[in-house]
Amino acid sequence: MTKTITLAQGNGGVENAELISNIFYRHFKNPLLEKSEDAAIIDSGRLAFTTDSFTVSPLFFAGGDIGKLSICGTCNDLAMMGAKPTYMTCAVMVEEGFSIEALNTIVTSMAKELAINGATIVCGDTKVVPRGAVDKIFINTTGIGVVQKGGISSNSVSDKDTIILSNDIGRHGATIFAAREGMEFESDLSSDCTSLWPLVEKLLAEGIGITAMRDATRGGVAAVLNEWAKQSNICIEVEEASLPVSDTVRGICEILGFEATNLANEGTFVLAVKSHDAPRAVEILRTFDAGQNAAIIAKVTHQYAGKVVLLSPWGSKRFMELPSGELLPRIC
Amino acid sequence: MTKTITLAQGNGGVENAELISNIFYRHFKNPLLEKSEDAAIIDSGRLAFTTDSFTVSPLFFAGGDIGKLSICGTCNDLAMMGAKPTYMTCAVMVEEGFSIEALNTIVTSMAKELAINGATIVCGDTKVVPRGAVDKIFINTTGIGVVQKGGISSNSVSDKDTIILSNDIGRHGATIFAAREGMEFESDLSSDCTSLWPLVEKLLAEGIGITAMRDATRGGVAAVLNEWAKQSNICIEVEEASLPVSDTVRGICEILGFEATNLANEGTFVLAVKSHDAPRAVEILRTFDAGQNAAIIAKVTHQYAGKVVLLSPWGSKRFMELPSGELLPRIC
Repeated sequence: MTKTITLAQGNGGVENAELISNIFYRHFKNPLLEKSEDAAIIDSGRLAFTTDSFTVSPLFFAGGDIGKLSICGTCNDLAMMGAKPTYMTCAVMVEEGFSIEALNTIVTSMAKELAINGATIVCGDTKVVPRGAVDKIFINTTGIGVVQKGGISSNSVSDKDTIILSNDIGRHGATIFAAREGMEFESDLSSDCTSLWPLVEKLLAEGIGITAMRDATRGGVAAVLNEWAKQSNICIEVEEASLPVSDTVRGICEILGFEATNLANEGTFVLAVKSHDAPRAVEILRTFDAGQNAAIIAKVTHQYAGKVVLLSPWGSKRFMELPSGELLPRIC
Repeated sequence: MTKTITLAQGNGGVENAELISNIFYRHFKNPLLEKSEDAAIIDSGRLAFTTDSFTVSPLFFAGGDIGKLSICGTCNDLAMMGAKPTYMTCAVMVEEGFSIEALNTIVTSMAKELAINGATIVCGDTKVVPRGAVDKIFINTTGIGVVQKGGISSNSVSDKDTIILSNDIGRHGATIFAAREGMEFESDLSSDCTSLWPLVEKLLAEGIGITAMRDATRGGVAAVLNEWAKQSNICIEVEEASLPVSDTVRGICEILGFEATNLANEGTFVLAVKSHDAPRAVEILRTFDAGQNAAIIAKVTHQYAGKVVLLSPWGSKRFMELPSGELLPRIC
């Protein structure tokens, strides 16, 4: 490992996993941590528990702000474990000189998103640091969810499952990138930042056989699929042509040489569902604004265990790798 | 309120309370939040839940480091509600270029302190931000504790209670101040940073009738006593001569014009216990290293409801006010 922290170590990919494993997992070693799920399942399977710190630049972007993001991010991690977001904490680190009006707008966004999830903030912490000690504002939210359906796990994906994307990918990453670079688009590019509990609740109510779910944040869809392939020791074969990507995001990727599958999402998730339920799951997802472009994207095989294979429309194959190197920092 | 955030709004005193109430409580309004306890009691009284973000400068100080602090701080908030620290989350924001060795030392301190509490980190988050976006490292920990004795509350202190301090006050604040100013002392001034669950566990096991407990962090003992006086609508009469303050801390206070009662502590707490149990509680506390200077400091009356009165050794009286203005920032 390097002697000092590098930006790549926060990329949600290879170097990030290495840092977490060599420093944090090593000292905090315990079975719950090593499951590497979106949220820890505690209290004999009754509750899900997860934390996330948010540092996005700019703070306000098309489709959301750091406040909305800070609630969606944590509530979505609970939803991904089949848990209803219930109790939340909110810890704010804010820089001396930050606008009270902006803070008020951010907290208003948080309250709005909490209501969508049916969750409440039950305790908090506010620290003010001298100018320059933090860039504007960082927010941590930690959440407890009540598990509605147990057994959902990234370690259980098998060849009985089909892989679905809940919506088109890369919009959060592309939006933040465009905003930071001052790029302007005729189109209405905006972040996919949204609360996923309503979609998950509906899928559960309709009895969809869900094996695993994960929101494709830092590291994008490529990170989720690679983690699942490794954790469940399976091969995920992705039909490249089936990946839902908007024309705008595709355009940004082509200009800049990004892969849409590496870009961060904040309201788009990957599902592994029992294959016979897959078409119905897509139908249900498409009834939501946040699931309009849901699609089946991959099957599970044993061809290359632990690997993700991308099948091109022309019949060629290549591996989809876990992202590495310096991806866009301060995105979520 | 001001138009921009001021350092005073992070002081644990008057302006801090105003910010929290005008922005956060207003939008997040719910009965649990308004109880203003050290931790929220959730899940029908079974669990305690609390969060804290840590930003201390310097990161390493006499008696601890940001890692030890980040576990003590959150576990102590759970202990103060009579809850055994159990499940923890850890979210780190670290600056590009930060030393991996220093990070490893910090995480080692966390692991050591977790073991003292019998708690485990079950999930985490690691974000790397570009150089300059954060000063070195911020850590958030959030904890769930299992309530061992219910009904402990800052809203229930009455004239049947006696007020105790678990140890001498002001050492954390004085240590950080001295380190930052490059002051050197012959004496062994060090932070009181410590895990309080072992002390609380013993008090509960011995059947001490505990009404309320609070660790006297930002804002010090003055903040705790004033909050209790207001929350329980009582008058707390403090015998000034009974306040345990070390000679070194007293010296620093005299030189710099601080009040020891306003200085932060990280392993010293205030207790309201049934008066007949008070002497025994002090005895039990004194069996611990972290309670060697435990003392009865105040009685509860109705003389000035909502106020804290300081009784001097010469018979004069004055109010002990909630701290205000710019106290030392980045202390915890």
